[in-house]
Amino acid sequence: MMPENKKIHIVGSHITQFGELWDRSLEDLAYEATTQCITDADLQPKGIDAIFVANMTASQFETQAHLGALVSDFLPHHPPSTRVEAACASGGVAIVQACQALLSGLYETVLVVGVEKMTDGSADAATVLSAAAHQSAEYGSTFPGLYALLAQAHMQKYKTPRSALSMIAAKNHGHGISNKKAQFRRAITPEAVEKTMMVSEPLRVLDCSPISDGAAAVILSTTRSKMNNSIQIIGFGQGQDSLQLSKRKSLTSLQSTKDAAQNAYRMANQGPESIDVAEVHDCFSIAELLAMEDLGFCEPGKAAAAVLKEKTSVAKNSVAFPVINHSGGLKACGHPVGATGVKQVAYLYELLSSSTNYSTGLTHNVGGSGATAVVTIVQKVNSTKGTQQ
Amino acid sequence: MMPENKKIHIVGSHITQFGELWDRSLEDLAYEATTQCITDADLQPKGIDAIFVANMTASQFETQAHLGALVSDFLPHHPPSTRVEAACASGGVAIVQACQALLSGLYETVLVVGVEKMTDGSADAATVLSAAAHQSAEYGSTFPGLYALLAQAHMQKYKTPRSALSMIAAKNHGHGISNKKAQFRRAITPEAVEKTMMVSEPLRVLDCSPISDGAAAVILSTTRSKMNNSIQIIGFGQGQDSLQLSKRKSLTSLQSTKDAAQNAYRMANQGPESIDVAEVHDCFSIAELLAMEDLGFCEPGKAAAAVLKEKTSVAKNSVAFPVINHSGGLKACGHPVGATGVKQVAYLYELLSSSTNYSTGLTHNVGGSGATAVVTIVQKVNSTKGTQQ
Repeated sequence: MMPENKKIHIVGSHITQFGELWDRSLEDLAYEATTQCITDADLQPKGIDAIFVANMTASQFETQAHLGALVSDFLPHHPPSTRVEAACASGGVAIVQACQALLSGLYETVLVVGVEKMTDGSADAATVLSAAAHQSAEYGSTFPGLYALLAQAHMQKYKTPRSALSMIAAKNHGHGISNKKAQFRRAITPEAVEKTMMVSEPLRVLDCSPISDGAAAVILSTTRSKMNNSIQIIGFGQGQDSLQLSKRKSLTSLQSTKDAAQNAYRMANQGPESIDVAEVHDCFSIAELLAMEDLGFCEPGKAAAAVLKEKTSVAKNSVAFPVINHSGGLKACGHPVGATGVKQVAYLYELLSSSTNYSTGLTHNVGGSGATAVVTIVQKVNSTKGTQQ
Repeated sequence: MMPENKKIHIVGSHITQFGELWDRSLEDLAYEATTQCITDADLQPKGIDAIFVANMTASQFETQAHLGALVSDFLPHHPPSTRVEAACASGGVAIVQACQALLSGLYETVLVVGVEKMTDGSADAATVLSAAAHQSAEYGSTFPGLYALLAQAHMQKYKTPRSALSMIAAKNHGHGISNKKAQFRRAITPEAVEKTMMVSEPLRVLDCSPISDGAAAVILSTTRSKMNNSIQIIGFGQGQDSLQLSKRKSLTSLQSTKDAAQNAYRMANQGPESIDVAEVHDCFSIAELLAMEDLGFCEPGKAAAAVLKEKTSVAKNSVAFPVINHSGGLKACGHPVGATGVKQVAYLYELLSSSTNYSTGLTHNVGGSGATAVVTIVQKVNSTKGTQQ
């Protein structure tokens, strides 16, 4: 349960354009997310008590560390500001740190900014991203290669068809068309996915999320809330597993996701059946399939069948499943790695605020090949499903 | 005041050898600090509820990010683990995050590990460390260069003599002789400092802390304490200022240090007069002089006179001043950047546990040229000075 009966309200958000933004710097993106988020929350800058900044790669691409201080300097009163990093789960982990800071009672209102500038950098992207894996145990491996191993294991164990992976990519591209901030806003067919170049068997180019620039921000508060329309984080959890795949107990599920989800569900006093919409970490198409099973939306080995029936799409959603990756996910919306976990929360806040179709959402953000996972549960206060306790 | 009347006990520590450790990897150092610290605390690994890992440069030197997961994997139950980075203040910021996590009530016992492997890396150290500065506003600048500007400003405003800088380096080398973990354990004279090569006027080689490998860890707990000998963190604060010097209001003091100290003193309900011993961030000799003034140990412009009378040395300590950098400081103990802020707390814990000369200590950890600063106040429970409220 949420400690001390404190409630964590989401009171503002901003997501920048995601994409190859050759005219925008790391600082430009962080500045837009910070200032527009404060405006969206209808706050003065001095209303921000502390800041958490999520970023993975700026030290490597831009030789720029110390992003806590960089973002704090956007505000005249220089609030305490901390960068956190957990590879592609940096954003999710920053949300967790922000929630913990609020629950400590030291702060009432905190800003979380996720930002990544991955194009136009001075380093090779595959090398930079490989830093999320174990450098001595998995030296030379790439992330498509590591996720391809997970895909191979899942296909072998559960007879998972290749077509399910293609359907996931096509669904997320379909969803992305409606998201103005998405990097890719064009439909693709499952057949088209299977005609793209092989990256690492069985993963092809269109199974993979892109290299992206972008930023996202949310403001969380224990004392402020928008009247009549309060959206709260009612549960969160962070799970870990071995960095290297060779030490894992299973290659067909991510223990970190299971642990994070269990903690989040327990804190929210709700289970997977409550979730109307989920933003999950589809860095590769196989990752969304694993997430569906690890988050408890279906039994292990059963996700592919649901995907092939389009049960998780906006158009053909079944009540037995949440809509998954309404934003287009990492695949179509884009994956500026440190921004992604913050974008997931920001996107659900905006969706739940504007749509009556959804009252409870879940975010799922993964670092590396599953060494870190963060799950949050976001709910409209007037939801009729369950009660936060 | 400390929220919720919770007390944060330090219940274990470990500091590895600091130095040029060509036979030790990043992971070796983190492993030693983690496992030996748990042994020192007389805990089972499962007694650790969460981990905070401080590191600045592993993404650049070792292409290894995701250190939270790396360290979590040393423990069989894989507790939630988060890397935080604030340049050379990474360790201090990790201590702050750990305290906030404890005060949230979500965790009872947390491990903080600071680690840095700076030698044998694949990148140029001056470039890697320049990531702590503002890369577009201060492109091409080095940290000796930035601190040399601060030194020039202080010398001009207060007629600060060059000899005070030399005395600081000589004092810290003298202190380092007694510290078995120190990188340098040999005396130097103030005159010798002034004969070393100029790095950036007025800073010479022996004004500068070294490039180092090393790790340090502490375990903090709200529920465990060693009977009869409890050492607590009774206050902490984190301050920020602009990354670039050109935007600062002053070049003769660090506003971030002042803000961090004010918050820490307020939380501890004590002032600078209570401090018996302080580990301050002497990355360059001028930085210790600034710290003495910004932490309130003396008036602005008065630190040099105290230093020249050796009032902050172990041998000639005056009651009006704390002993400063008993460990040898960054200068003689070494400066593995992410480890330093954790080492400061670990060192004071060990000193206060073993010596009756000191009951209240202060740590001061700075990131970049002062864009981040963290201050903690550490006290023996049976101290006769003041009372935690």
